[in-house]
Amino acid sequence: MNCTDTLKNIRVVLTQPSHPGNIGAAARALKTMGLTTLALVRPRHFPHPDADARASGALDVLQRAQVHDSLTAALEGCVLAVAATSRQRELRHEMMSVRAAARELLAQAASHPVAIVFGNETSGLSNEEAGLCRVWACVPANPEYASLNLAAAVQVFAYECRMALPDSDRLRAPEFEPANHEQVERLYQHFEKTMVHAGFHDPANPKRLLLRLRRLLARARLEAEEVNILRGFLKAVDKMRR
Amino acid sequence: MNCTDTLKNIRVVLTQPSHPGNIGAAARALKTMGLTTLALVRPRHFPHPDADARASGALDVLQRAQVHDSLTAALEGCVLAVAATSRQRELRHEMMSVRAAARELLAQAASHPVAIVFGNETSGLSNEEAGLCRVWACVPANPEYASLNLAAAVQVFAYECRMALPDSDRLRAPEFEPANHEQVERLYQHFEKTMVHAGFHDPANPKRLLLRLRRLLARARLEAEEVNILRGFLKAVDKMRR
Repeated sequence: MNCTDTLKNIRVVLTQPSHPGNIGAAARALKTMGLTTLALVRPRHFPHPDADARASGALDVLQRAQVHDSLTAALEGCVLAVAATSRQRELRHEMMSVRAAARELLAQAASHPVAIVFGNETSGLSNEEAGLCRVWACVPANPEYASLNLAAAVQVFAYECRMALPDSDRLRAPEFEPANHEQVERLYQHFEKTMVHAGFHDPANPKRLLLRLRRLLARARLEAEEVNILRGFLKAVDKMRR
Repeated sequence: MNCTDTLKNIRVVLTQPSHPGNIGAAARALKTMGLTTLALVRPRHFPHPDADARASGALDVLQRAQVHDSLTAALEGCVLAVAATSRQRELRHEMMSVRAAARELLAQAASHPVAIVFGNETSGLSNEEAGLCRVWACVPANPEYASLNLAAAVQVFAYECRMALPDSDRLRAPEFEPANHEQVERLYQHFEKTMVHAGFHDPANPKRLLLRLRRLLARARLEAEEVNILRGFLKAVDKMRR
């Protein structure tokens, strides 16, 4: 099973969402992070044009959303359910950060369905609903105002699930071609020669300037094409006279 | 300077936002993460009732938002500007993940103003705008659909800034009082005695059952009050007869 399949095993459950716009925005949040499975428990309005509008390019996720009569039904088959909650007063359960919870979810989702459960926009999860979840997790937030919008909270949870994939913090390799060692060294030598030619530095005492140049070029991590551009410029200078 | 002040040094700049609802939602996202400074470059509609509505409890952040004529003006005084972009084709600049960029932002924000710059909902940042930023950063996303809603992207960046604070991944200590070693041991002995009293186990061969009980109690990380509850129950059982 590859990483994409792992994310597909994560079911995001919205219980009794009031605003259909939030359902659409949640679908969009899921899809941007590679999640595909949305479940709704007794949504107040669904389907709804506001949900479609806010889903934007994630209409497919929205249209495949399953609607359930109860949270128990929505959690069927899941080996781990994580309750998303910000309510610090309910610290009866152990509370995890969303980052730690995402790691647990990913570990299970490699082989089994798991769920993240979000409550109603105003009232959150009831004690009964949260009690159906084995883990409670929250987004570490400003203690003076911890009220994330529902879809924003879904975005952060989905983001942390994606970030919990192996190597997800490493970005795709750049598409340009990096300059190799020899190209950079030749550029360096060319610079030296041209700087002498331009009377810019004294070849009898080159040390410090050339070290600085080397340091700068190393930090720049040049592309092959950039090396060619610079050498083209140096060649032009080589043809000039003092 | 403490951590809260560090977050206040992070300016979130929205360039030419089209939808006032997104401005309000961005203000809310900032405040939930402890950020306070919102700057707008030529917003299409601002102020606007949709912005107020979506800001919810973050009206103060919205009302203090500064409006500028140019991105250059919005970046005044910043020692580091990070461009939020998902456009992989523009990999001329070095591209960081939002998590890595947040670490750089926090390091500077301890002593100086810094900025995160977001583009228009449809067109993103222009090359010219992105060129004013030293670092480009993106939210690692589904390559097939990487289009985060503007406020959702702001939420993830603000979240990673908060998570980059020292110890932010460590949650506030639970407010209940954990049971100490002696309390748990006394509970364990009480269980043993009561189980014998109840004829549930043979004191001549207690090993495996008691080990399992100890393992369970260890895993549960009991609160002091829970120990009292359980011992109250055991006392009640002690008074019963076979």
